[in-house]
Amino acid sequence: MPRCLKWLFSFSLILLFQSATYATDGYKLWLDYKTISDSALLKEYQSLLGGIQFYGNSETIEKASREIQQGISGLLGMDSEKLNGKYRLVIGSYSNLPKDIAHQFSKELEYLNKEGYVIKSISNSIVITAKTDIGVLYGTFNFLKRLQTQQSIENLNITDSPKIDIRILNHWDNLDRTVERGYAGFSLWNWHQLPEYKDPRYEDYARANASIGINGTVLTNVNSNALVLTPQYLEKVKALADIFRPYGLKVYLTARFSAPMEIGGLKTADPLHAEVKNWWKNKVEEIYTYIPDFGGFLVKANSEGQPGPQNYGRNHVDGANMMAEALAPFNGVVMWRAFVYSEHDTTDRAKQAYNEFVPHDGQFKDNVIIQVKNGPIDFQPREPFHPMFGAMANTNLMIEFQITQEYMGGATHLVYQPKLFEEVFEADTYRKGKGSTVAKVIDGSLHNKKITGVAGVSNIGTDRNWTGHHFLQANWYGFGRLAWDPYLNSEDIAKEWVKMTFSNKEPFVEKVSAMMIESREAVVNYMTPLGLHHIMATGHHYGPGPWVSDLSRPEWNPVYYHKADNSGVGFDRTPSGSNATAQYAPEVAAMFNNLETCPEEDLLWFHHVPWNYKLKNGHTLWDGLALKYQEGVNEVAQMQATWNQLENDVDAQRFNEVKMLLNIQYKEAKWWQDACLLYFQQFSKMELPKGVEAPAHTLQYYQNLQFPYAPGIRPQW
Amino acid sequence: MPRCLKWLFSFSLILLFQSATYATDGYKLWLDYKTISDSALLKEYQSLLGGIQFYGNSETIEKASREIQQGISGLLGMDSEKLNGKYRLVIGSYSNLPKDIAHQFSKELEYLNKEGYVIKSISNSIVITAKTDIGVLYGTFNFLKRLQTQQSIENLNITDSPKIDIRILNHWDNLDRTVERGYAGFSLWNWHQLPEYKDPRYEDYARANASIGINGTVLTNVNSNALVLTPQYLEKVKALADIFRPYGLKVYLTARFSAPMEIGGLKTADPLHAEVKNWWKNKVEEIYTYIPDFGGFLVKANSEGQPGPQNYGRNHVDGANMMAEALAPFNGVVMWRAFVYSEHDTTDRAKQAYNEFVPHDGQFKDNVIIQVKNGPIDFQPREPFHPMFGAMANTNLMIEFQITQEYMGGATHLVYQPKLFEEVFEADTYRKGKGSTVAKVIDGSLHNKKITGVAGVSNIGTDRNWTGHHFLQANWYGFGRLAWDPYLNSEDIAKEWVKMTFSNKEPFVEKVSAMMIESREAVVNYMTPLGLHHIMATGHHYGPGPWVSDLSRPEWNPVYYHKADNSGVGFDRTPSGSNATAQYAPEVAAMFNNLETCPEEDLLWFHHVPWNYKLKNGHTLWDGLALKYQEGVNEVAQMQATWNQLENDVDAQRFNEVKMLLNIQYKEAKWWQDACLLYFQQFSKMELPKGVEAPAHTLQYYQNLQFPYAPGIRPQW
Repeated sequence: MPRCLKWLFSFSLILLFQSATYATDGYKLWLDYKTISDSALLKEYQSLLGGIQFYGNSETIEKASREIQQGISGLLGMDSEKLNGKYRLVIGSYSNLPKDIAHQFSKELEYLNKEGYVIKSISNSIVITAKTDIGVLYGTFNFLKRLQTQQSIENLNITDSPKIDIRILNHWDNLDRTVERGYAGFSLWNWHQLPEYKDPRYEDYARANASIGINGTVLTNVNSNALVLTPQYLEKVKALADIFRPYGLKVYLTARFSAPMEIGGLKTADPLHAEVKNWWKNKVEEIYTYIPDFGGFLVKANSEGQPGPQNYGRNHVDGANMMAEALAPFNGVVMWRAFVYSEHDTTDRAKQAYNEFVPHDGQFKDNVIIQVKNGPIDFQPREPFHPMFGAMANTNLMIEFQITQEYMGGATHLVYQPKLFEEVFEADTYRKGKGSTVAKVIDGSLHNKKITGVAGVSNIGTDRNWTGHHFLQANWYGFGRLAWDPYLNSEDIAKEWVKMTFSNKEPFVEKVSAMMIESREAVVNYMTPLGLHHIMATGHHYGPGPWVSDLSRPEWNPVYYHKADNSGVGFDRTPSGSNATAQYAPEVAAMFNNLETCPEEDLLWFHHVPWNYKLKNGHTLWDGLALKYQEGVNEVAQMQATWNQLENDVDAQRFNEVKMLLNIQYKEAKWWQDACLLYFQQFSKMELPKGVEAPAHTLQYYQNLQFPYAPGIRPQW
Repeated sequence: MPRCLKWLFSFSLILLFQSATYATDGYKLWLDYKTISDSALLKEYQSLLGGIQFYGNSETIEKASREIQQGISGLLGMDSEKLNGKYRLVIGSYSNLPKDIAHQFSKELEYLNKEGYVIKSISNSIVITAKTDIGVLYGTFNFLKRLQTQQSIENLNITDSPKIDIRILNHWDNLDRTVERGYAGFSLWNWHQLPEYKDPRYEDYARANASIGINGTVLTNVNSNALVLTPQYLEKVKALADIFRPYGLKVYLTARFSAPMEIGGLKTADPLHAEVKNWWKNKVEEIYTYIPDFGGFLVKANSEGQPGPQNYGRNHVDGANMMAEALAPFNGVVMWRAFVYSEHDTTDRAKQAYNEFVPHDGQFKDNVIIQVKNGPIDFQPREPFHPMFGAMANTNLMIEFQITQEYMGGATHLVYQPKLFEEVFEADTYRKGKGSTVAKVIDGSLHNKKITGVAGVSNIGTDRNWTGHHFLQANWYGFGRLAWDPYLNSEDIAKEWVKMTFSNKEPFVEKVSAMMIESREAVVNYMTPLGLHHIMATGHHYGPGPWVSDLSRPEWNPVYYHKADNSGVGFDRTPSGSNATAQYAPEVAAMFNNLETCPEEDLLWFHHVPWNYKLKNGHTLWDGLALKYQEGVNEVAQMQATWNQLENDVDAQRFNEVKMLLNIQYKEAKWWQDACLLYFQQFSKMELPKGVEAPAHTLQYYQNLQFPYAPGIRPQW
């Protein structure tokens, strides 16, 4: 064959060899700009894109420019310098654009906030502009996404702004690089070698976050260590902040409430004590000398043994406002967690955060934002929305999701969580009548809030593919997208991610996104159907443990939550029980209180129901429960079947890795079904209905399983 | 340009993009078969290599075949199917080769052991053969190495056999994936997801080991956990063993001596107790049902708090032989560590292993092998050879090196350890007169041993480049090479590694290998010159701590080892002191005892010397010590200078990562110099000599530094 073909051949061989070993290990996430395989479309894009002109000279613009070059050389398989198509790309912030172009955007700019962007076709150009260079970077990623997802780039007229201010990851990372509830390896932060050694992965992390609009990261665990506030560590934090800054990613830290004593040598951490206030004031000033755009603190106080203002007879307002005062001069914020439940409070744990915080509505300073978990217990496969949403009209309030799957199978189970996030955002609080959705509470529109935020507990670790399971990258991705716009549709997000990450091929996108959407209901069904919750094994929460009843704190025991007995199962939170429903708006409370109107998916969350209670489908509760477990297992089997059909559409490495994990997920779903049904059957004393597989082992077998080294907990070494 | 060139262009772009992001992250180790850049040589190889014929159909032969295909497609940039040069490659074990070819090798085969191989040119063929398929695999890697290092492949006549039976890595990996003394991330073994999830990295690990002749791996920490011997974990171990087997890599486990009580429910672990013997017998039988070629146990008994036979008034012979009896029917071995020192024994720690073991020479069973550290203390930058070498003529005895750098800066310092290994192997024990080198003790030739072995404590972790520092891959590589043949030259190994890993370009190879060779003496100089030892900080051993004197056990304190006072510094191990020298052969003892003949590199190991003692170079001990520290720092500066010259010869990622690490190494070398000289100066009361930089801080500053989260120790979370 002709020499150049010979070379082409050898090149492609090496290329194949490389892609077989690299391009498919998942490291590149949704930013793997594989050359477009549809040659007609490839030609069309090549014919439409001309030269590229960047305006502005900030580091952020450099990153945007590098991104375009990488994107074009990958997607279009050609050097962006060589583009000679119809439209030139004009990229830069409003103030940097040539006046003649800029003036055409004054109208659009009015509608943007400082992170928003415009992408618009004008005469022979496609212009990407914004009020800030960060907005330009976001717009650049969006433009590339249009190519990745094979959309038209003609007659563009896109304006988009984030609907929420703080879009932030919470890393529960410890200074020894272990990660609490981490299932994807260990912490990305190599504290020992920082600040001198800058792992290239730090920038890849910031870039991935920027590509989905995440603009903040809390580096350290909410179960915090004061050492990170010492100069020795602030130097290291600064090194990370400097790498993240061009990507619009602000750094935050967890502040241990007792730090003034542990690293400040004070005798107290009383927030009303002058010395303490002063210590925090000086500490914050010191932090800003290292990191001029430091974001602020995340605080877990008087929760699960963490120190807090209550140790000194003060309340959350005293604690949060004290720190807020220190941060205010620098525009820093305090994210104060509402996740509190006292071992001395014998009432329903689900009621405690509301009871402790709502009475203080209006008392928190403007730069305090209360961080509330999506549900009233703790990141279960399904929870009703947290009653605090909408209940604090005069307090900044943000939502906390747990992207890492503490209660959903760690990194081993494919669970597409944006479906869960969407369900929460769409829930109606009725605080201002029908349509007062959680989304409107969180984006601030319901009560016109000063600061808004969405936090996600990170599922990212040192694993090569970042999240342990290739499909759990979609949860990081989808979290970012919904934090930017909580009104997006989770199915659209799934399809977008599949196209960017795997393939634009039609049946493939349909099948895989359908599998993802189904996965969330599957995990609810095989773990905690019909409103069951917190029946996981102790400590690591890996696997079922509905029988656990011997833990020191009542509300740590699964039996506290399911209350199964011969009369039935479920937690009565109606007025006849804990009356937790009273914390919701009257319309919502009424709906939950009434067995007829309470959604069956929340049935056992709110009601203690007899085993022979008739469900809407005509089955008894016992039969319905058993059938739900079976349904969950069957859904995982369906996911396996779907994936196995797709072997030829996915590279070998990702196909096999996902296949192995789906096999584990199926095995564990069955384990959940068998263990839970055997346990509850002791009380229902009823036979398994037709269509439900007999358990593989005895109840005792499941009760005896031990997993002392399950990941995500304090190392046992 | 013509269409195919256009395509070629786009291909090469993607290729460049990929190699920029992948090919250079170090994951491929020394097996990154980059296409040969010397086009003349490339053509020559292409013209010499014809078709490839494999004989045999074992999994191992499949691996060899895949390796050749990968190697050829990478190195020669062409599909191995397409080769049409002068010599065909004929590859297979003796018994599988066609008779007409096989009979030409009967002579060579005689000289081979079961892992050896022959590579020989005959008429129009190059034949790679061996007695076993594993030998064939080793020969295949050797042949590819000839291409990687650009040697001639004409008139080949190579026969090579490993000189040592057990060439094994010891992983100090815990079941929670933390690694004791691990500095390259966390454990490769994802116990939680095994056996179902088989990380592709497991095979890459086995393949890398096979490429350098390593044939065994101990998966678990010598500070062991009995759980790994339970069925729950044996299933996981089996999964790894199945992946490693085709690469000739046998799996071993650490056996916790008290396992019969912890997982067997017995009341005792007394090795002479019938129930205990029986428990181990059954346990071993059970293990072999999972892993038919299980290698055996590594045992740390009655050492640093580990349980052992002495807890029951028995001795090491009783303990080791009891396990050996259980393993013998399956040809398993017991590697019993000699690293013992009692907190109740007030004598010199350096003497204790010898005292406890040598009296038992001849009493250990044939499948017991005593594992002895290279020196009498604990993996210091330099130690004299261990006196047990050559002292147990009738006992199998293997050497243990620490590839991971517990006492040499973790993964942050570039220290080329094969230089250290070589120094130990070349040391002369004089046990059978001059020339009784440690190498001859270890390869069994001195006393004609039944089993021989070399162990290396692994420096491998989850870091993308395996060893944390690109250059520390050379220590894994060089360990394997010297375990195969302890008479190899460490400089040749360095050059070979540089060519395979970076480039064949002279003077690059010269400069980099010279830097590597120098690095070992550098770390001795800036940490522990002239025979100083064990003056590292407490626990993590990160940084200097010569002042530490408050630890519960005397021999844990640096002051125990340097004994600095106004009269001088050093540990008198001559007859006037601990008389540890009496444990060496008379010729060696005499050399060490006499100040005139004692090598100055071991001076303070064996002698307490006055500060004004005159060194051979005419300097006083104090001046000489100070100048040695300075020399070490200067050597690191030289390493930095060398590396910085080479920016254009190395890919950007590896260049920058190594550069950042060399900067840390320089900073820490200076830290060592300043802290140690300030400390010893309190006793010498002498000025720093000319040419030695003044310390940057006060002694107190260095004494106050704290690193609670230095890696490699029990997590502090």
